[in-house]
Amino acid sequence: MLVGHRTWAFENKPKIVATGTIGGPFEGNGKIPNDFDTIHGDLWLGQDSYEKAQKVMFEEACSKAVEKAGLTKEQIDFILAGDLINQITPSSFACSSLGSPFIGLFGACSTSMEGLALASLIVNSGHGKYVLAGTASHNTATEKQFRYPTEYGGQKPPTAQWTVTAAGAAIVSKEGDGPIITSATLGKVVDMGLSDPFNMGAAMAPAAVDTISAHLKDRNIEPSYYDYIFTGDLGTIGRNIALDLFKKHSIPVKEERFQDCGLLIYKEDQPVFAGGSGSGCSASVTYGHLLNRMRKGEIKRMLIVATGALLSPLSFQQKLTIPCIAHAVSIEAGGALE
Amino acid sequence: MLVGHRTWAFENKPKIVATGTIGGPFEGNGKIPNDFDTIHGDLWLGQDSYEKAQKVMFEEACSKAVEKAGLTKEQIDFILAGDLINQITPSSFACSSLGSPFIGLFGACSTSMEGLALASLIVNSGHGKYVLAGTASHNTATEKQFRYPTEYGGQKPPTAQWTVTAAGAAIVSKEGDGPIITSATLGKVVDMGLSDPFNMGAAMAPAAVDTISAHLKDRNIEPSYYDYIFTGDLGTIGRNIALDLFKKHSIPVKEERFQDCGLLIYKEDQPVFAGGSGSGCSASVTYGHLLNRMRKGEIKRMLIVATGALLSPLSFQQKLTIPCIAHAVSIEAGGALE
Repeated sequence: MLVGHRTWAFENKPKIVATGTIGGPFEGNGKIPNDFDTIHGDLWLGQDSYEKAQKVMFEEACSKAVEKAGLTKEQIDFILAGDLINQITPSSFACSSLGSPFIGLFGACSTSMEGLALASLIVNSGHGKYVLAGTASHNTATEKQFRYPTEYGGQKPPTAQWTVTAAGAAIVSKEGDGPIITSATLGKVVDMGLSDPFNMGAAMAPAAVDTISAHLKDRNIEPSYYDYIFTGDLGTIGRNIALDLFKKHSIPVKEERFQDCGLLIYKEDQPVFAGGSGSGCSASVTYGHLLNRMRKGEIKRMLIVATGALLSPLSFQQKLTIPCIAHAVSIEAGGALE
Repeated sequence: MLVGHRTWAFENKPKIVATGTIGGPFEGNGKIPNDFDTIHGDLWLGQDSYEKAQKVMFEEACSKAVEKAGLTKEQIDFILAGDLINQITPSSFACSSLGSPFIGLFGACSTSMEGLALASLIVNSGHGKYVLAGTASHNTATEKQFRYPTEYGGQKPPTAQWTVTAAGAAIVSKEGDGPIITSATLGKVVDMGLSDPFNMGAAMAPAAVDTISAHLKDRNIEPSYYDYIFTGDLGTIGRNIALDLFKKHSIPVKEERFQDCGLLIYKEDQPVFAGGSGSGCSASVTYGHLLNRMRKGEIKRMLIVATGALLSPLSFQQKLTIPCIAHAVSIEAGGALE
């Protein structure tokens, strides 16, 4: 059901019945290594390119989710996936080996919740029994494509963010137990004219606030309805801007209840500039760390707001602005999560 | 409702209530110029880059569809779009100015039917009243990115295809008149090990046959149920391979009832090698030419099978194969099309 202007309410209670999360070495040294199903000590994962390493990481996340759900991969009706790499090849190649019908997405770092929203819609409306949504990102593959190969040793300002090497996948179904996906609010493209790719948090913050504001209006709820609102990867700069915007627009979001996946994943002393980013960031933190906290009873209701910067290396070279988007999905405890 | 393994049946009769189609100069000299709402005589469309020209073309297709539906752009609940350009920036920038919530897709040249399938699902399940699906491609923007700038004068073998400069958009709704979208079959990634980007038709043909075969099985119908099955852009080579595969698998598709959008758009004497391709090809031919033929009563039921080659310039340089996909949507006459 469409609620308000751009929020989908899922009355048939699609649930996250299982997840898989994979991390790289830098994430293994981070703040939440135990929330990953697998941590790899080597960025290459035994492959001969970083793009293939990303593909393998995504395959592993999907396989782990399938295994934990007690399913076979043939039982997955559809996979919704995408990533940051040109023409989302790591996702496409992974789906070639996974074998399920594939719905390719591009939402940059907002892909995680774009996919979860669509998977929930498919399950809610009876158009699929088991639907998988997921995404991955790989630090060095992303650096090479968007900026420079890391061997070049390019310097970055402190406003830059660190692309996480991680994958996260979730299986959505009405069958089985798990936290319930109650609603999703789709994002509009918000472009405030910023064009610095070393400060994406600032570019994405207005998109996050726009979607959160629309979500609260559409559902007619206060921010306090949620124990937490988690953004995808605004980092320190973007988070502060978002908090300022909440104040400006009189949206009573409490600072301590507004957290960012890009700030949860690494330790304070890791050299990640303004925090983590990448499509695998919100996916792995949500499907690992945050669902674990939900399982422990620390969180009952949360809104995950995955933020994406929709630039390309070419649009940057052509001196264009950075259009941004944020997709939000609400997850509420209501069953035991496997 | 999920029918069989990977087919969505739309029991609430989502319809294509209006479309917009825009073409470039080469398409204006083609076989079906009168089936475009607008033909541009200049590849640049007054812009300073081909990517911006593609963006403007897509904006125009959307605006034309909105105008023909008698709506305002504020009434469009969601736009589903994507294209071939890295990080689908033409679609994202267009949606920034169009203003509706945006669901970014990547399916290469299969994006048209991937979007139409999802738009129909959203409308069918009551999660949107007016939902727009569309895509665009631009010859010189695509050549520059995937191969060489055209100024370079690179030679091509006769198996290559010509990326169309065109955009197509369709508005799906339960309100109003128009042909009914009855079902959609989502594609699996099919990779037969081919790696020649100058022969994409051959790479894509098996994916098209796989999806058509699944569609017929899932719906329990014969190919003769449809007046025509139209593929996205297999071109002459791919179409012949598909016909061979039908014979091999004893799928009784009649040659004259199996046509290709990439072969419908240009005249025989235009130098397009094996035929047209590009995400705007199936979108503009379907939403213009084919729906016009439906309006005239020449076609009552058709299956549109948009095919996509999921390679990237990088995956080609890394000597990887070309994974392919095809998404199919059935459109059946049942109301007057505006």
